[in-house]
Amino acid sequence: MSPNRADPEGAIAEAAQTYSNWGRWGEDDVLGTVNFLDEGKRREGAALVRRGASFSLSQSFDMDGPQKGWRRRTNPVHTMLATGTDAAQGNQGLPHGFGGADDVIAMPLQCSTQWDGLGHIFDHGKAWNGRPAERVVTCEGDLVTGIEHMAPHVAGRGILLDVGLVLGGATASRDGRRRADELPDGFAVTEEHLIHTAEAHGVTVGRGDIVLVRTGQLARARREGWGDYAGGDAPGLSFTTAGWLHRTEIAAIATDTWGFEVRPNEFDGAFQPLHQVAIPHIGLLIGEMWDLDALAGDCKADGVYEFWLTAAPLPITGAVGSPINPIAVK
Amino acid sequence: MSPNRADPEGAIAEAAQTYSNWGRWGEDDVLGTVNFLDEGKRREGAALVRRGASFSLSQSFDMDGPQKGWRRRTNPVHTMLATGTDAAQGNQGLPHGFGGADDVIAMPLQCSTQWDGLGHIFDHGKAWNGRPAERVVTCEGDLVTGIEHMAPHVAGRGILLDVGLVLGGATASRDGRRRADELPDGFAVTEEHLIHTAEAHGVTVGRGDIVLVRTGQLARARREGWGDYAGGDAPGLSFTTAGWLHRTEIAAIATDTWGFEVRPNEFDGAFQPLHQVAIPHIGLLIGEMWDLDALAGDCKADGVYEFWLTAAPLPITGAVGSPINPIAVK
Amino acid sequence: MSPNRADPEGAIAEAAQTYSNWGRWGEDDVLGTVNFLDEGKRREGAALVRRGASFSLSQSFDMDGPQKGWRRRTNPVHTMLATGTDAAQGNQGLPHGFGGADDVIAMPLQCSTQWDGLGHIFDHGKAWNGRPAERVVTCEGDLVTGIEHMAPHVAGRGILLDVGLVLGGATASRDGRRRADELPDGFAVTEEHLIHTAEAHGVTVGRGDIVLVRTGQLARARREGWGDYAGGDAPGLSFTTAGWLHRTEIAAIATDTWGFEVRPNEFDGAFQPLHQVAIPHIGLLIGEMWDLDALAGDCKADGVYEFWLTAAPLPITGAVGSPINPIAVK
Amino acid sequence: MSPNRADPEGAIAEAAQTYSNWGRWGEDDVLGTVNFLDEGKRREGAALVRRGASFSLSQSFDMDGPQKGWRRRTNPVHTMLATGTDAAQGNQGLPHGFGGADDVIAMPLQCSTQWDGLGHIFDHGKAWNGRPAERVVTCEGDLVTGIEHMAPHVAGRGILLDVGLVLGGATASRDGRRRADELPDGFAVTEEHLIHTAEAHGVTVGRGDIVLVRTGQLARARREGWGDYAGGDAPGLSFTTAGWLHRTEIAAIATDTWGFEVRPNEFDGAFQPLHQVAIPHIGLLIGEMWDLDALAGDCKADGVYEFWLTAAPLPITGAVGSPINPIAVK
Repeated sequence: MSPNRADPEGAIAEAAQTYSNWGRWGEDDVLGTVNFLDEGKRREGAALVRRGASFSLSQSFDMDGPQKGWRRRTNPVHTMLATGTDAAQGNQGLPHGFGGADDVIAMPLQCSTQWDGLGHIFDHGKAWNGRPAERVVTCEGDLVTGIEHMAPHVAGRGILLDVGLVLGGATASRDGRRRADELPDGFAVTEEHLIHTAEAHGVTVGRGDIVLVRTGQLARARREGWGDYAGGDAPGLSFTTAGWLHRTEIAAIATDTWGFEVRPNEFDGAFQPLHQVAIPHIGLLIGEMWDLDALAGDCKADGVYEFWLTAAPLPITGAVGSPINPIAVK
Repeated sequence: MSPNRADPEGAIAEAAQTYSNWGRWGEDDVLGTVNFLDEGKRREGAALVRRGASFSLSQSFDMDGPQKGWRRRTNPVHTMLATGTDAAQGNQGLPHGFGGADDVIAMPLQCSTQWDGLGHIFDHGKAWNGRPAERVVTCEGDLVTGIEHMAPHVAGRGILLDVGLVLGGATASRDGRRRADELPDGFAVTEEHLIHTAEAHGVTVGRGDIVLVRTGQLARARREGWGDYAGGDAPGLSFTTAGWLHRTEIAAIATDTWGFEVRPNEFDGAFQPLHQVAIPHIGLLIGEMWDLDALAGDCKADGVYEFWLTAAPLPITGAVGSPINPIAVK
Repeated sequence: MSPNRADPEGAIAEAAQTYSNWGRWGEDDVLGTVNFLDEGKRREGAALVRRGASFSLSQSFDMDGPQKGWRRRTNPVHTMLATGTDAAQGNQGLPHGFGGADDVIAMPLQCSTQWDGLGHIFDHGKAWNGRPAERVVTCEGDLVTGIEHMAPHVAGRGILLDVGLVLGGATASRDGRRRADELPDGFAVTEEHLIHTAEAHGVTVGRGDIVLVRTGQLARARREGWGDYAGGDAPGLSFTTAGWLHRTEIAAIATDTWGFEVRPNEFDGAFQPLHQVAIPHIGLLIGEMWDLDALAGDCKADGVYEFWLTAAPLPITGAVGSPINPIAVK
Repeated sequence: MSPNRADPEGAIAEAAQTYSNWGRWGEDDVLGTVNFLDEGKRREGAALVRRGASFSLSQSFDMDGPQKGWRRRTNPVHTMLATGTDAAQGNQGLPHGFGGADDVIAMPLQCSTQWDGLGHIFDHGKAWNGRPAERVVTCEGDLVTGIEHMAPHVAGRGILLDVGLVLGGATASRDGRRRADELPDGFAVTEEHLIHTAEAHGVTVGRGDIVLVRTGQLARARREGWGDYAGGDAPGLSFTTAGWLHRTEIAAIATDTWGFEVRPNEFDGAFQPLHQVAIPHIGLLIGEMWDLDALAGDCKADGVYEFWLTAAPLPITGAVGSPINPIAVK
């Protein structure tokens, strides 16, 4: 498949038709590809806990994040309702020397490490499973496919595909600031790259897996500053991976980048075309802004790229996404 | 131990001295009893995944929650930055039929299912490990023991102690509205009750475990309305369990109630005296407002009260607590 | 006019047609009846400043407000980013003994003393001036008639109609808890009541005036607790005043109640029918939850019921309402 | 007075002692210099309404503001709870064709056009009137001098000192991008400049006045982008104006800049030293980020630089500042 750069709409329509999962799990489905993550897959995943080492795959949630206000997305604003300073001053009015601290957060659900819910993206007014977008996500939230439906499910076998490590060295560094385990911005990760990386790691991707794709961009942003991490150029999945995403029957996929797919996008004047196929048509659970570096270091060291993974969204009723702290255990 | 109702301060001081873990993990410790949850414990926990069934232990995060404004704690306010309705109307200005929904949340970190961080409670101006509260939690947040330090750790062996089920039937229902697997408000769960329940379930509580205590109060609140669930009378742990909490060397403990310990508290004019020992002195990770009902139903059905449990806090830098969606897998 | 209780839709349609101001100020109008408030009216208003006494007509903005969560409306949550306690502790890291406090607020724009913007209410999908609601207020806010357009205008002649004082004594107190200057809940203030009150006060209501109607309900709520102040039964304007609101050509009107019009509403199964005429059709600026008591006390004392009034909305871009602190000067 | 650049602490201490108003209005004072704004001043101010023309002096409150996250100060985040799009779709479930829009805001009280409350700044742990900072502003807010105490007072005679217009042309433009009515960044406005400007305008500054100082920096930021408007270099009042601020007995003063005083500050390693004298010692009400351009244009045109001014803070209980929409009427 070699999409015509000038016709994103045509390419999206063709991919949407070819890879649609609409109706696959019935009219009332609210889980999409998470349906692939069944009890057998969880047993398989749990068996991967060999050492008991655990890794958080979450970025920090604070004002030092990448958001710059686009689409009113700010970094998380965390404030205190009560503090130790006040407690020490005796300002709290509580008995027997009791003191406490409380806090509050205000944040976009898309501000940092997250899952995109099935109501996050629409194609020509259609949401997941063919539902009219205006009946699914109103100002009251996602009335049908809110992230709360995912609450108990997202725990299973995780696989890391460290494409940055496997292919980063082979790509020319244009500026000398990129390291060998990092893909350059604008690098489109294709199906071939994914397959090659899996082979290099000795893992097989299959039904119900949660696939984590490391590009190395986050490591670069950490070293050099956020720059345009939120919405600017980035390595990421090629639009042409839609077939692979569909065929492998994975439950979910996540990257260490802001937007999952390669940026600039591969069509003229386009905006996140792979999302437009993957979420409303494939029903795929997509994660973004994950921090895969500590896990990747461990996988490189022991050569084991599969693990038990729990990435539980907060059951915020009607949310089209959720901040998460995914935990991998090897 | 039979504390003098009139002297909470004395009882707290005695328990604090007797059960202190200050210095146990060094001067710089930021994990408290989570130190007990080691890799061996995770291997032990993962081995408990037999069927692959997973359970969310989180309440919903929405405006239908229990908060009524005390200490400026509101229920979560979730609003949309973009909707399907707008997308369907063509109001979004994006190319090739792309539409999207985004959202925002504002919430106290103590509003629903949560962990209390180590900076949440102080005793006479002292935080965990003996640090001065005013040096630990300022308006900038918890500068030392912020919940982000827990990020990779809280995954291990979970145990459910369904005290409501085991003891609820034996307590007289004063009003006919309480079911047989629910403890009455004001019921103090003692060490003996915990031990008896564990024996009834055939489980042993030990070092590094995450213990979940079900009282049944949440089930009652669901049926009858929140009432004073947030801060009113409730079943919960007796102050006298401090020794058990310390001796068993558990990593963490959570209940299905607002405030973990029995309310009214067991001293005159007191406020959460067990917190004042458990958090700053024992360094114990405490969870509140967990929804244990679905898991309890399954445990009752198959008789297995131990499982793999992941309860990952969001790494909100400097937070003294975190909303969570704990996932148990059996 | 004697509306048929069973046919709110018919009554609304008739009033909407009869009292419509659509097109009166051109196709592009964004001010509605605020157009009536011209420079001459401001000169007239300023001449009413005789003593120089000023009165705030705003309720407090804090957690002790009336909101209970309906429509996700909470009371204002005010938190601190920096405090004196931290400054005194030397926690702030600023030079030469400098210390500071900062703060943050999260609040519905409809939570306390407020103006309803012209985009706040629609009639059968039509906004003010006949515009399609879906083109006016999207998730981006009110793109056409946002409250920011009112920013420089709302300063002029104010008139207090203390209907509570004039008519409260004549209504039977059902429960002995209502005072003589308070109307009972459910009391519909008619055109005749308004005219009678103005005559009793010796004031004439005319084009461009800002009319404040005191029912006394807020005083009662202060004394007895909020109860159902937010959305429950209340005295307020009768649906039948629509003609008076239109004919007098007032610029704006406000009450000391949650919802401006009488509640329960005067039709079976209706919801705020007068709003549906007054805002989208008359283009009237409506204020709610004003605190008129201190001003009313002064007016009663000196017998002067007209004054200079400034009630400037915050120019929040695209807002459909604004919190305000109206200042009357006599 | 020629302060030693190397000794901000000494200069602040000297000015604080010389210009202190502590005790001037009694031990319990919560108004500071707003005490100067009495009824006579309001009568004088109201007499300045000659044409009835009104001007908003507020910047917009939206995401296009100057804030960049310093001190967790974001731009205002305004979101919708209900929209016209939803209403038009019939998603709202309300009777007789009723539709509505509601909204929410989350914002720092210091994010845009504002008053600094008396609890905003401390000097060596002392707040206004000599109170200990830790007893005044805790995590509960300003318990003593919260901005709500100012609610009815801030309406009186306003004076514009357009220093940009009077002195801008005389300062060399370093970059060709500054216009003749704009002061360069780093320009310290002295007492002599203020007096000269008042003379040029034909106005006299006196007790109880509200003085508005236009530098022209906001106009430049509008034209060229915000850049470092929030916290960067700027024209502003010299530290040496402390005596003038005290001696003139003005009630309040505001500028069109982020930080009121000149930046970089006039001492090495200093941070807002004039604030440290003006707020806690003089008790002066200070406004920042006002938009004076439309008013200045009118004043230049008619040569009248005095007017009626209402700048009512929202009575947010315990706030150390408030967003405002000041209205000038000429």
